Amino acid sequence: MKNEINIGLLGYGVVGSGVATILHNHQEDLRHKLGVPVSIKKVVVKDLEKKRNGVISKEMFTTSLDEVLNDPEIDLVVEVMGGTSAAQEAIRRSLEAGKGVVTANKDVMAESGPELLKLADENKCDLLYEASVGGGIPLIRTLEDGLASDRITALTGIVNGTTNFILTKMKHENKTYEDALAEATELGFAEADPSADVDGIDAARKMVILASLSFSTEVRLDDVFVRGMKEIKDGDLQLAEQFGYTIKMAGSARKDEEGIEVAVEPVFFPNSHPLATVNNEFNAVYVYGDAVGETMFYGPGAGSMPTATSVTGDVVAACRNLLLGVNGKRLHAPQYERKVKSDDQKYARYFHRITVRDEVGVLTELTSIYSHHKASLATVVQDSELHEEGADLIFITHKISRQQHLDILQDLKDTPTVIDISSHYRVEGE
Amino acid sequence: MKNEINIGLLGYGVVGSGVATILHNHQEDLRHKLGVPVSIKKVVVKDLEKKRNGVISKEMFTTSLDEVLNDPEIDLVVEVMGGTSAAQEAIRRSLEAGKGVVTANKDVMAESGPELLKLADENKCDLLYEASVGGGIPLIRTLEDGLASDRITALTGIVNGTTNFILTKMKHENKTYEDALAEATELGFAEADPSADVDGIDAARKMVILASLSFSTEVRLDDVFVRGMKEIKDGDLQLAEQFGYTIKMAGSARKDEEGIEVAVEPVFFPNSHPLATVNNEFNAVYVYGDAVGETMFYGPGAGSMPTATSVTGDVVAACRNLLLGVNGKRLHAPQYERKVKSDDQKYARYFHRITVRDEVGVLTELTSIYSHHKASLATVVQDSELHEEGADLIFITHKISRQQHLDILQDLKDTPTVIDISSHYRVEGE
Repeated sequence: MKNEINIGLLGYGVVGSGVATILHNHQEDLRHKLGVPVSIKKVVVKDLEKKRNGVISKEMFTTSLDEVLNDPEIDLVVEVMGGTSAAQEAIRRSLEAGKGVVTANKDVMAESGPELLKLADENKCDLLYEASVGGGIPLIRTLEDGLASDRITALTGIVNGTTNFILTKMKHENKTYEDALAEATELGFAEADPSADVDGIDAARKMVILASLSFSTEVRLDDVFVRGMKEIKDGDLQLAEQFGYTIKMAGSARKDEEGIEVAVEPVFFPNSHPLATVNNEFNAVYVYGDAVGETMFYGPGAGSMPTATSVTGDVVAACRNLLLGVNGKRLHAPQYERKVKSDDQKYARYFHRITVRDEVGVLTELTSIYSHHKASLATVVQDSELHEEGADLIFITHKISRQQHLDILQDLKDTPTVIDISSHYRVEGE
Repeated sequence: MKNEINIGLLGYGVVGSGVATILHNHQEDLRHKLGVPVSIKKVVVKDLEKKRNGVISKEMFTTSLDEVLNDPEIDLVVEVMGGTSAAQEAIRRSLEAGKGVVTANKDVMAESGPELLKLADENKCDLLYEASVGGGIPLIRTLEDGLASDRITALTGIVNGTTNFILTKMKHENKTYEDALAEATELGFAEADPSADVDGIDAARKMVILASLSFSTEVRLDDVFVRGMKEIKDGDLQLAEQFGYTIKMAGSARKDEEGIEVAVEPVFFPNSHPLATVNNEFNAVYVYGDAVGETMFYGPGAGSMPTATSVTGDVVAACRNLLLGVNGKRLHAPQYERKVKSDDQKYARYFHRITVRDEVGVLTELTSIYSHHKASLATVVQDSELHEEGADLIFITHKISRQQHLDILQDLKDTPTVIDISSHYRVEGE
């Protein structure tokens, strides 16, 4: 058995330096847990001249990835450099060099997860990626451990901190979208270009990672139905509250005999649902397992120390596997063939807000469209407050297929008394 | 290195048979994870004649614990027999025989945890107890992993499913305590004698386990301040709702330089707090860590399959340690000396509901008691609805010490215009 484990660290930014600090501060504990010492041997950075504080001595820094790849004493590579193509390439080459990899890179894992995991298996290496989803929340590990003794049937989660922060400020402090976004940017919760967050792409990447793992099947980014938060119209948050709901940007994934469905969209959650009270930059994922039932994991979705904590957890797991000689035995190959549901196989409740001309018989006209499409209604409300140009009608359906929902919206649009489909949402729950 | 791992299972009830089923159904996966096969070799039961279904063949059952203890091929004992003294004895003897132990027994772990963990260390054995708290929620493992790279400063949680079920039914279905308890009993969520649950003792045991582990210090059952749910008076749930709160039976544990405080009591949670929406028989624990910040873990607090899933997770962990030769290296010895806070070191907000004679000047008289004790008030409300014999005054304080709270209650009691201290609660939050 090995008598020590050496790590090559790629990147020394906020997460990388956090990982180095944790490994340094807890070295005694790690030696006790694993039976051998674990230490960082080399750190690959872009610029050697940059001033750096921390626990890594100057001579350990290098600009050459090859120095790590060609060092037979380095067993494990920790990729926290960020970005996409260079990081993907570094992970690929590390695995080909027979080194286990721990990464925090959700972009790479969502884009190239299946190929990289296959490559890891072929090279008998671990590829662990806990920190790629949900920052400090131990989600991937829990799903993997759960999978060993349970079958995951569905996931629903708030996996993007930026949009959740914006929605919280809009709801609880009556801020406009623009003001809330500005505050998120100022606090470092939103990027200079927030489009990946607000358009739902970041969340979609995370759902690809979670769904692939949970359902042991290939899930592509294209398989995810995505609606950004711009679909949330003025007054919708308050309207939702009137009906006892909170709007959240949520990811959802479900699997049954017919296939999988994965979506990221603004969703109406009943105020009594645990996800309705997940506020600010926090993340939370609800997991449904056959044996365990409902579980939820909540915590900070990002941040230096939470993310570094997750990376370190993966390092410990990878070291254990190396020492046991069971590295690269995670059985990554998807167990099930990719089978994506069509719109007439996806069932949910829907909320429709329709602006109509305030004419006699309009309600009958509209409800007959729902009947025609065999959609049964749970709630029908005519909003007393008139717009300049008409009245608002609210419909909440019982469960219907997404195809029924789309057909109804099309027929409503084609109705002369309908001025506008102001907004529509999926409603969580039975 | 060992080339197989054999288990002795103590008890074959709902949890035990679940464990056997999971180990049987997932044997291929376990062999891949660990590199060696894992199987149950003997099952100790009270009555050999009882008809049993499941994956264990008849000749593997025995009534003799010694058969397990004296079998050198058995590496690991799984105790799911329940009860206290016999189970405690079986765990002790297993550890003395040099066998690792996995247990789901919260009573034994709360009573004798420190001695048994010490004994485990002395015998270089693991003693794992994930299933003793929070059923299917991977709490202990998360806290232990978290501890390797973080410092836990506080925990707040709903750790008793019975009381949470009763409170949910009382709040959302307006049931009386008696009716809600009857329903809990019928559904199997409450024992025939529910006193350990409703009086808070079950929750106190779980908080002892969680606090000892999180703070690495000795915590005794006597250190836990316990108020049962009988302290919740008629109308309090509705009154809480009027002020934007939900009452939950909650455990809390906190550690700072002055020491630790652990309590189980009915608490006012703001409706926006994630624990306020944890309903029915579900459990959830909020964990505050220095590095990770706030995390929460939610799930079924009990039940056969959730609990069996947790036990199996521990079995996998214990097998890993055995194979690595790092069994019994968890450093169980408490790192910090036991130091329990006194009442003037415990700070919280409090809700007081006082029934008074409806006389001129009574409000001034009572608020002067708060001023006298230097307690600042966040909310003062005189309930418009008169009782037969008086009016209700509501006070919500800013943070005060528990000693101030007790002194104020005493002075209020001694005031002639005060008819009764109807109820009082700790209020969660700053």
